[in-house]
Amino acid sequence: MTPEERAQELNLVLPDPPKPLGTYVPAVEAGGLLFVSGMLPVKAQRKVWTGRIGTDLTVTEGREATKLAALNGLAVARAALGSLNRIRRLARLTVHIAAAPDFGEHAAVADGASELLAALFKDGGGHARLAVGASSLPAQMPVELELVFELA
Amino acid sequence: MTPEERAQELNLVLPDPPKPLGTYVPAVEAGGLLFVSGMLPVKAQRKVWTGRIGTDLTVTEGREATKLAALNGLAVARAALGSLNRIRRLARLTVHIAAAPDFGEHAAVADGASELLAALFKDGGGHARLAVGASSLPAQMPVELELVFELA
Amino acid sequence: MTPEERAQELNLVLPDPPKPLGTYVPAVEAGGLLFVSGMLPVKAQRKVWTGRIGTDLTVTEGREATKLAALNGLAVARAALGSLNRIRRLARLTVHIAAAPDFGEHAAVADGASELLAALFKDGGGHARLAVGASSLPAQMPVELELVFELA
Repeated sequence: MTPEERAQELNLVLPDPPKPLGTYVPAVEAGGLLFVSGMLPVKAQRKVWTGRIGTDLTVTEGREATKLAALNGLAVARAALGSLNRIRRLARLTVHIAAAPDFGEHAAVADGASELLAALFKDGGGHARLAVGASSLPAQMPVELELVFELA
Repeated sequence: MTPEERAQELNLVLPDPPKPLGTYVPAVEAGGLLFVSGMLPVKAQRKVWTGRIGTDLTVTEGREATKLAALNGLAVARAALGSLNRIRRLARLTVHIAAAPDFGEHAAVADGASELLAALFKDGGGHARLAVGASSLPAQMPVELELVFELA
Repeated sequence: MTPEERAQELNLVLPDPPKPLGTYVPAVEAGGLLFVSGMLPVKAQRKVWTGRIGTDLTVTEGREATKLAALNGLAVARAALGSLNRIRRLARLTVHIAAAPDFGEHAAVADGASELLAALFKDGGGHARLAVGASSLPAQMPVELELVFELA
């Protein structure tokens, strides 16, 4: 099965790709990789959550936020490449999580994105991942994703 | 026009490349990419600003800081490659911004670097970008850039 | 000398590679690079230190923590590649350091990892590096490494 076929089977409806917040582009292809710009949990160009995970928002809300940001990342990749089928795999995902100094559940929050993305790509969709705590993120949103895809 | 010709037209005078602060090198070429080490807003090896954007420094100062760090990144790239003309494009820029938990203007601060860098490369210099808030940065400097160039 | 020969000469005993904390894999090969997942200072799957550098832990402890995380990264790379000899060089290392807003000694902490890694690879093991302050890291550990190796 191709990524597009898996997306269809999962009833995954991708949103319109979010617009950049400044002087940059949504994604750049280089060296056989697709570098996607920071993906935020926005819906129709508007933010859905404000604040930090663990303080203002729960881990469950954080998981929803990384999942929404991942959907935006797939939408950007499809717009840049024409089709998700040009993607061989997700090479690396970094999940930046706005969180207080005593937060520790980064892995659970990041799994919201990882579970969605893993389901789309072959061989179980395994990807390298980092999850780190940010002091703050653009427009005080709770999460931001950094995606590097390997192209076929 | 080549990047070097654009730099000349913009009267862009690059500083001496900053020296590493530890056991690493300014840049490494690998896989058709140039990975540049963390670029800080230093001038002649000395820091210009101390503190966090939004608390100790304004967004305007933050923009100046990312612009200075971008100039240092170009200087490092030219020293590593011999000429900026070996660069095809900026693939990805990550802007780390020392900021308090309630800061939200990361995109405006990052644009100080993006506007300068976009002007140098072909097709409008589009690059993928992330901007994230750091709790602190080396020597308490306000910004740090992570640059990945694609080589021609 | 090969990396494996250097490791032997340095009496470097690599631990078992740490298991992922969520839905991801330890490392992914793509575009001639090996992307390693976030490496934490764990020993036998258990954390050794909790808290932030400069507040709860000293710079010396931070150096030990980045060194341990680097050993874990080498163990992951060897398990993924079969041998460290498939590595041409460390292309880039990012060191995320859980630290308070007034911390500034990121470079000294990061050198714990850089000194170990530089000793293993040819031509002095030069690598590009970033060190940034995180508000918090997974399971409240003090450091997390992001490694990108170039393959031979």
